[in-house]
Formats: sequence, structure tokens, C-alpha cells
Amino acid sequence: TASAENIEEEVGRVVEDAKELQDMVANHISKTSSEEQFLRQRALSLDSSIHRLRSLLDSLLSHKLLDLKLADKLDEDLQKARCIMVDGDIASLLPSNVQGRFLRMFLGPINVRASRKDVQLKVKEEYNSYRDRTALLFLLFPSMLLILRSWVWAGCLPAFPVQLYQAWLLFLYTGLALRENILRVNGSDIRPWWIYHHYCAMIMALVSLTWEIKGPTDCAQKQRGVQLFLQWAMMQGVAMLLQNRYQRQRLYTRIALGKAKRMDVVWGETAGVDGQLWLLCPILFILQGFEAYVGLLLLRTAFVGVVSEWQVIFCGFLLVVMAVGNFVNTVQTLMAKSRF
Amino acid sequence: TASAENIEEEVGRVVEDAKELQDMVANHISKTSSEEQFLRQRALSLDSSIHRLRSLLDSLLSHKLLDLKLADKLDEDLQKARCIMVDGDIASLLPSNVQGRFLRMFLGPINVRASRKDVQLKVKEEYNSYRDRTALLFLLFPSMLLILRSWVWAGCLPAFPVQLYQAWLLFLYTGLALRENILRVNGSDIRPWWIYHHYCAMIMALVSLTWEIKGPTDCAQKQRGVQLFLQWAMMQGVAMLLQNRYQRQRLYTRIALGKAKRMDVVWGETAGVDGQLWLLCPILFILQGFEAYVGLLLLRTAFVGVVSEWQVIFCGFLLVVMAVGNFVNTVQTLMAKSRF
Ligand SMILES: CC(C)(COP(=O)(O)OP(=O)(O)OC[C@H]1O[C@@H](n2cnc3c(N)ncnc32)[C@H](O)[C@@H]1OP(=O)(O)O)[C@@H](O)C(=O)NCCC(=O)NCCS
Ligand SMILES: CC(C)(COP(=O)(O)OP(=O)(O)OC[C@H]1O[C@@H](n2cnc3c(N)ncnc32)[C@H](O)[C@@H]1OP(=O)(O)O)[C@@H](O)C(=O)NCCC(=O)NCCS
Repeated sequence: TASAENIEEEVGRVVEDAKELQDMVANHISKTSSEEQFLRQRALSLDSSIHRLRSLLDSLLSHKLLDLKLADKLDEDLQKARCIMVDGDIASLLPSNVQGRFLRMFLGPINVRASRKDVQLKVKEEYNSYRDRTALLFLLFPSMLLILRSWVWAGCLPAFPVQLYQAWLLFLYTGLALRENILRVNGSDIRPWWIYHHYCAMIMALVSLTWEIKGPTDCAQKQRGVQLFLQWAMMQGVAMLLQNRYQRQRLYTRIALGKAKRMDVVWGETAGVDGQLWLLCPILFILQGFEAYVGLLLLRTAFVGVVSEWQVIFCGFLLVVMAVGNFVNTVQTLMAKSRF
Repeated sequence: TASAENIEEEVGRVVEDAKELQDMVANHISKTSSEEQFLRQRALSLDSSIHRLRSLLDSLLSHKLLDLKLADKLDEDLQKARCIMVDGDIASLLPSNVQGRFLRMFLGPINVRASRKDVQLKVKEEYNSYRDRTALLFLLFPSMLLILRSWVWAGCLPAFPVQLYQAWLLFLYTGLALRENILRVNGSDIRPWWIYHHYCAMIMALVSLTWEIKGPTDCAQKQRGVQLFLQWAMMQGVAMLLQNRYQRQRLYTRIALGKAKRMDVVWGETAGVDGQLWLLCPILFILQGFEAYVGLLLLRTAFVGVVSEWQVIFCGFLLVVMAVGNFVNTVQTLMAKSRF
């Protein structure tokens, strides 16, 4: 019949089309990748030129072979060239931060680098809004536990809700650590410590899950550690909200300034939000102090002998380490910023 | 000085180069993406043509308007066209399996799809070797615990090593679930159940972490559940090793047959490893039976009243659900295979 003849012809055409398209796509891929190779070569050589000129400039300066004003101008020019490379589309051709062991452990050898700049920004924004949602829960969850504890549970937390909270913390910190690693691969300058900090928090959540909450002995005394921990978590919620506001404004300032403008403002980049930083930092320091205090209290309850589980000693120790690390890294960040 | 003049000129050149390169890269990106857009359009229309012709073919056949031999040939041709699209480079242009909630929850909106076919294969191979390493540990870890239990610990497991094992399980299942989700996005036909199965296993590991292992009462009785669980885990290690051998050979058969050939063998694809499947399946069924048995025993210990923690009931219930799901899905897989 006509329809049968028709379909034979159409099927034949479809097979031909598929073969042709396959060839076209294969062609497109190989052409694109060889062009990319060429551009990458140029980017790499340009990158090394910038490095070479910067060290030449430094050595000329230190030997006083260069006029100071000229040196300043050249420094600015080099900075500009560097910004064009790092903030523009070229960045996707330069080798990225290596994808660390953590990501490989969980995800295998998949590449999480976004090749386009706008996708990278979207990832960053989503990270910020994830942190926002998190911060609210960080406030709500422990405060609810503490309120229920004194109003409903007569001073003695039942195990289940606390364990639910600890499981949530574990999930949360794992997500944050994964996302921050992904941001790093996508060119964020996040200090490694903030990521290690979340590894520590993951371990702590895991350990606290195995921590016996309701023993046969006096409840109030046994739960002193849990209670302190919850109070500290609430304070962290407040700090996170402030920190998020600051980070988000910083990101928006950078986006709003636009690509071209942004290149000229690296050294005064935080100008618009510097005020906030000086409000945020005292709060951060107080929090870090409280973190260390909670850690020391936990250690004390363990050594005085009220609670002798290894989990308590371990968490106390980890909290102190985290507090010290946070403090050192916040100070270093501030010092680096004030140098500009 | 000469050197100073030189550097001024060189810096100027570098800035110019950077601007030029930025333009070239931007150009390259926009050209590539518009070409891709064009190719994608063609791929999509070809895809819908194939769908249309297939249903036309079916309806012609059901109305007996087509010679059977011709229909077979056309069916084969359509299958061929489909294979060219799915197995070749075109696949990267077609919309992939949506990236599920699980990945978004942990990773945010980052794209984990590998655009090149060889990278996808590498991801799959790495997943297989990850499973291999895992399977060995699956054998070693619980058997060591059981041996130490009877030889060193006098029939009573201490809490710490068991909790270490449970934490390892949690980490492991999270990694597997993430990797399988990534494989799915990259075009694997893995049944959703095998992924849900790992979600269940994650939840079980988490719950078992909060499970009190060493109570004040009789140890041997309280640990009956843990002991059964460890025995089942050992058996699972054996099954995993066999399963991996089968899956790996299946993958290698597919790679070895090569792209062109592979397209002709989808329907007889497992030919080379069918024998293994008939060895593997009875073992899987036995294991699934044992899984259900352990679940029921846990439920019994809970209801008879030896151990009355909710964790025991929950894990028992989960094990039964997993066993039934595994059984149903294995049977469905076998039935789908035998239809060819
Ligand atoms: C001090 C602080 C506000 C400085 O923030 P900042 O001005 O963004 O710091 P930097 O300029 O060094 O940031 C570089 C990058 O790291 C990121 N970053 C900085 N601190 C971060 C943190 N704590 N977590 C995640 N990312 C962070 C920034 O977003 C930026 O990313 P980008 O390169 O993609 O734009 C910030 O580091 C901070 O909040 N630290 C204290 C955290 C703390 O102690 N929390 C626990 C309290 S108990
Ligand atoms: C029955 C079985 C051997 C069939 O395997 P198969 O022949 O590969 O099955 P399919 O052809 O349906 O596979 C389709 C895809 O899913 C993958 N897949 C199948 N079963 C899988 C599993 N259990 N885990 C992960 N991936 C699996 C295959 O690798 C294949 O991937 P691809 O499309 O990327 O090539 C396998 O499903 C299996 O081992 N099931 C039992 C698992 C079990 O019960 N474990 C617990 C024991 S208590």
C-alpha cells in the first residue's frame, strides 16, 4: 500500500539522517576541542608571561632600577591583565583548583566544574540561599529543643529528637562540605580551613550520634553537655544569618559592578561592605570564644568524672580545635584585607 | 634604563594580549553554543521522528497493513537509528535523565553530566572498581568483628568497633547513592529501586548508630541482632563480588564490541554473560531470603520483649522491605531480559 511504501522510505531517511547527524556532531566536538586546545595554549603562555613580568617588576623595584610611579602603573596594568584572565571567560580554560580527595571519595572522577561564568555565579548564589535556609533551622531546631526541654520534658531531653537533630547536622555539614569543595573547583578563593571546619563538624555530629543521651544516672547532670551544645548552636544560627547577609551583599556588589568594572576594583572590592565586616567580626569573636568555652566545659565534665564517655572528651577537644582554627583564620582574613 | 623601557612595552603587550584573548574566547564560546543549539534542534526533531515512525509502524502492524518481514526490517532500522543517537556523540545533546532531588540536596545545582562518551565510560568503570574495593571490606570488616567477638571479646562486642563499622556503612552507602545518581544522569539505565535501596541502607546505618549496643542486661541476648546483621553483611560481600564480576564483564563486552558493532547487538547484548547471570541469581535469591529472615528475627526479638528499642523494630522492618523490593526487582529484570 501507499502508506507501507511511504514508511519504508521515511525509515530509510531517518537512518540516513541519524548517520549524518552523528558525523556532524563528532565533527563539531573535535573542532571545538582543537580550538579550545589552541586557546588554552595561548592562555597558559599569557599566564606565565604575567608571572614572569611580575617577578621582573619586583626585582627591578628592589634594585631601585625603576621609577616608583611607573612601577605603580605597571603593577596596576598587570593586575588588570590578571583580572581579565581570572574573571572573564578565559578562566574556564586555565587549570582549576584540583578536585580534592573529598569530592573524589563521594562522587568519583566526575568533573564538577561549570564551564560558563553565569552558571558558576548561580552555584554560588544557590550556596548562599542554602546557607540562609540552614541558618534559620539552626536557630529554630535547637531553640525548640531547649524550650520543650524546660516546659514539656521537665528538664530531661528524650533521646529521639536530639538524635534527629544530630542526624540533621550530619546531613547538613556533609552538604556544606560538598558544596564548598565544588565552589573551590569553580574558582572560589575560600580558605581551606572553612572546609576543614565542616569536616570537623561532620565528625562531631557523627560521634555525638553514638553518644548516650539518657543514662541511668542523674539526667540534668548528664545532659549538661548537650544543653551547652544546643545553646551554642543557637548562637551560631544568629552568626550565620549575619555572615550570609554580608557574603550575599559582597557577591551582589561584585555582580552589580559588572565584569568590566569589577576588574578595576579587586583591591577595593569589599569597599561597600567593609562597614558590615566590622560589625560582624566582634560577634564572630564572641561566638568563637563561646565555642572554646563549651569545648572546655565538656572536657571538664569528662575529667571531673560526671560523664566518662570517650565521645564527650572527643567532642570537647574538637570544639576547642575548631574555635582556635576559626579565630586564627578570621584574624588572618582581616589582616589580608587591611593590607589593601 | 633599557630594562625599564622594555618592561613597560612588555606589560602593554600583555594587557593587549589578554583583551584580545578574552574576545577570542568569548567568540569561541558563543559560536560553539549556537552550533550546539542548531545540532540539538536537529537531534530533537530526529528523535521525535523516530518516535512517530515507531508508533506508525505499530499501528500499521496491528491493522495488518504491513508485510511481517518488512516490518521486522523497519523495526530493526529504527532500532539502529535510535542506537546511533543514544550510544554515539549525539547523546550529549539530548536531554538527560533529570538530576534528582538527592543530588540537588547534596550538591546544589551543579551539572554532573559528562559531555564526552569516554568520560562517561570512565565514570562507570570507576564505580565498578569502587564497588570491588567495597565488597572486599564488606567481607573483611564484619568477619573480623565476628572472629574477635568469639576469640577475644568473650562473646560480647564492645560498642566502639561496631559503631565504627556502622559509620563506615553510612559513608559507603552515601557514596554509592551519589555515584548511582550521577550514573543515571549520564545515561545509565539503572532501575530506580537499586538507588532507593541504598537510601534505605543509609537510613538503616544512621539509625543503627544510635542503637545501644552494650546495655546493662545480658549481652549475648541483646547482641543477637547485631550478630545476625554482621553475618548477613558478610554474605552480601560475597554476592557483591560475584555481581561486580558480572557487571564488569558486561561492560567490557559492550566496550569491546565497539561503537559500530554495539549498535547491532542491543537485543542480544548480554549474550556473553548470560551464563553468569544464571549462576548469580540463585545466590542473590538466597541472600534476599536471608535478608528477610534477619529482618523478621529482629522484629521478633523486639516483640518478644528482649530488646524493646524502636531502632530494632525500625531496622527489622526496613530489612524486610529491602528484601522484598530486591526480590521483585531482580525478578522483573530477569523477565525483561528473557523477553528478548
Ligand atoms: C571573616 C569572614 C566574614 C570573611 O569573609 P570574606 O570577606 O568573604 O573573606 P574572603 O575575602 O577571604 O573570602 C574569600 C572567599 O571565601 C569565601 N568564604 C569566606 N569565609 C567563608 C566561610 N566561613 N564559609 C564559606 N565560605 C567562606 C568567600 O565567600 C569568598 O568566596 P569567593 O572567592 O567565591 O567570592 C568569614 O571568613 C567568616 O565569616 N569567618 C568566620 C566563620 C566562623 O567563625 N564561623 C563559626 C562561628 S563559631
Ligand atoms: C539482577 C542483576 C544481576 C541484573 O543486572 P544487569 O543485567 O546489569 O541488569 P540491567 O540490564 O537491568 O541493568 C541496567 C543498568 O543498571 C545497572 N544495575 C543493575 N543492577 C544494579 C545494582 N544492583 N546496582 C547498581 N547498578 C545496577 C547496570 O549496570 C546497568 O547499567 P548501564 O545501563 O549503565 O549499563 C542486578 O540487578 C543485581 O545484582 N540485582 C540484585 C542486587 C541485590 O539484590 N543486592 C542485595 C542482595 S541482599
